Amino acid sequence: MSFFPTRAAFAQTLAALPGPNEAAIEAARERQSQLTKPAGSLGRLEDIAIFMAGWQNRTIPAIDKGRTAIFAGNHGFMVHGVSAFPVSVTQAMVANYGAGGAAINALAGFAGMDLTIVPLELDRPTVDFTQGPAMSEEECLAALNAGAAVVTPDLDLLTVGEMGIGNTASASALCAHSLGGSAAHWVGPGSGLDPEGVARKAAVVGQALALHADAPRDAFETLRRLGGREVAAMAGATLAARAQRIPVVLDGFINCAALVPLFVDNPAIVDHCLAGHCSAEPGHVRILETFGLSPLLSLGLRLGEGSGAALAVPIIRAALAAHAQMATFADAGVEKSL
Amino acid sequence: MSFFPTRAAFAQTLAALPGPNEAAIEAARERQSQLTKPAGSLGRLEDIAIFMAGWQNRTIPAIDKGRTAIFAGNHGFMVHGVSAFPVSVTQAMVANYGAGGAAINALAGFAGMDLTIVPLELDRPTVDFTQGPAMSEEECLAALNAGAAVVTPDLDLLTVGEMGIGNTASASALCAHSLGGSAAHWVGPGSGLDPEGVARKAAVVGQALALHADAPRDAFETLRRLGGREVAAMAGATLAARAQRIPVVLDGFINCAALVPLFVDNPAIVDHCLAGHCSAEPGHVRILETFGLSPLLSLGLRLGEGSGAALAVPIIRAALAAHAQMATFADAGVEKSL
Repeated sequence: MSFFPTRAAFAQTLAALPGPNEAAIEAARERQSQLTKPAGSLGRLEDIAIFMAGWQNRTIPAIDKGRTAIFAGNHGFMVHGVSAFPVSVTQAMVANYGAGGAAINALAGFAGMDLTIVPLELDRPTVDFTQGPAMSEEECLAALNAGAAVVTPDLDLLTVGEMGIGNTASASALCAHSLGGSAAHWVGPGSGLDPEGVARKAAVVGQALALHADAPRDAFETLRRLGGREVAAMAGATLAARAQRIPVVLDGFINCAALVPLFVDNPAIVDHCLAGHCSAEPGHVRILETFGLSPLLSLGLRLGEGSGAALAVPIIRAALAAHAQMATFADAGVEKSL
Repeated sequence: MSFFPTRAAFAQTLAALPGPNEAAIEAARERQSQLTKPAGSLGRLEDIAIFMAGWQNRTIPAIDKGRTAIFAGNHGFMVHGVSAFPVSVTQAMVANYGAGGAAINALAGFAGMDLTIVPLELDRPTVDFTQGPAMSEEECLAALNAGAAVVTPDLDLLTVGEMGIGNTASASALCAHSLGGSAAHWVGPGSGLDPEGVARKAAVVGQALALHADAPRDAFETLRRLGGREVAAMAGATLAARAQRIPVVLDGFINCAALVPLFVDNPAIVDHCLAGHCSAEPGHVRILETFGLSPLLSLGLRLGEGSGAALAVPIIRAALAAHAQMATFADAGVEKSL
């Protein structure tokens, strides 16, 4: 039994998003006001603790079971050469994840997250989106469900990431189609294109946008036409987490772009999400502004594979440690203020 | 035998700062270029690993022994009432640190730093700096040496912090005297003053600046006249760390202000320092700009007690984990790029 049996089920889940527990939010806020520090002096660490309390439905939230899931897919539009790396690198990096040698192995390991790698039919790239929809309805549903499958009810926190050579082109197309703006407005250097390469990528994205200009703009149809398997899987995982009130830390441009079609249908989709970081890929900051999210970190990362989200998890853990462990003014015998 | 036997010894140490090991920097940079990621894609994590390599003099740096030291002191100018909290809170918070109930206990604990609390004659506040120098020469030397005493040669990383009700007034005076600008330019709300309280604090700082306007501006004399014991101790610890090439993560406004008089004498004093965060206290961002340092975090903290520096340590650990653990392109059989 899959999480999204039909595209209608996907749309219905997106239309009826649960909210956080308001009583837990209030209890966590009250606790923060009693801890031995000037009111508000822990800044966003206080907000993080209260946010986590609401979604985990407990005054003192914790991350006993956190998961980082990386989805990998290949793209038909890579026949046009829109990346600094060859398409074979997607498979090679999946092997690298398995062997423990990638950045995400180190960062998720340090963050205390278990790591799940989900390669999605790497030997069967999506259709070139300048020629037709990237995926059939069945293929898109399968990818959404592959994402949902990593979300188990025991999770306290989820982060997702991706590997898919060329997939900033897909991400740029999703943003332009859903939010407006030209291909050139949304396309950036990705993993390291020179200006000529960026222009070539923008031209390919522009062709795709023209082909699909008159398509319906609901989330499913946009993901199916302009996304990719790993992109749809991230959207499916984030939506499945929301249905189970599991908080999510967002990664970079591609992870956020995967949610843009969902955001257009229901802006509340990002309410259970913290923005882990702001990436160096220029489109990312625009998506975060659209979402109304302020990133926890801004350290110039542009790697993908969930690295920025995993890097933010220790900050969240630190916020929860302060929230859980600090004494109250009454406990410590400290005067609250003059 | 104290680290700074005389004020001349302090000045001499400050004048002859050692640099990082250039060969280790080069070796770490070369290693970064071989790791399985697009060049530069880990952003500042790469810079952190290379920085740590240089100061630790090894290609693969680590933090096996990290220390957070908190210095506490009381201020004579508190007779003017320049804080939202009563002076008794300094002692009460020192007790809270001892009992493990403060934010820094949770944050340093999470960061894997050992925690050293150094109360400095709390029952003997400094002289009111509107009436005379805050400390005698002997008192200032004792405070500098109390700072240096926490720096042991086995340390891989040091962070310092402070507790001293009212000490943003001292920090503001240090900045204005050393860098120029009025008292009002440097004074902010601290732990929570209202605008009227901020104006009162600025007036007190202005009186101090007028009294000491014609004093010599060398680092020792400025710390002695306008600092405090906990402020001088942070400066002493940071300089002692530098003499031993131990890297330091800076905390907020007061920690950075303690280094401003040293920076005026020798701007290289911050070369072994990473800016842990940018605090909400308005003067902090100006000091960081003066230092030419970009903060790792900007999360609205304004707590002091070393909290922002400790919060940044997990980011540094994550950077070192990626640097140490990632496979090279050759190891992983990944093509480096097209």
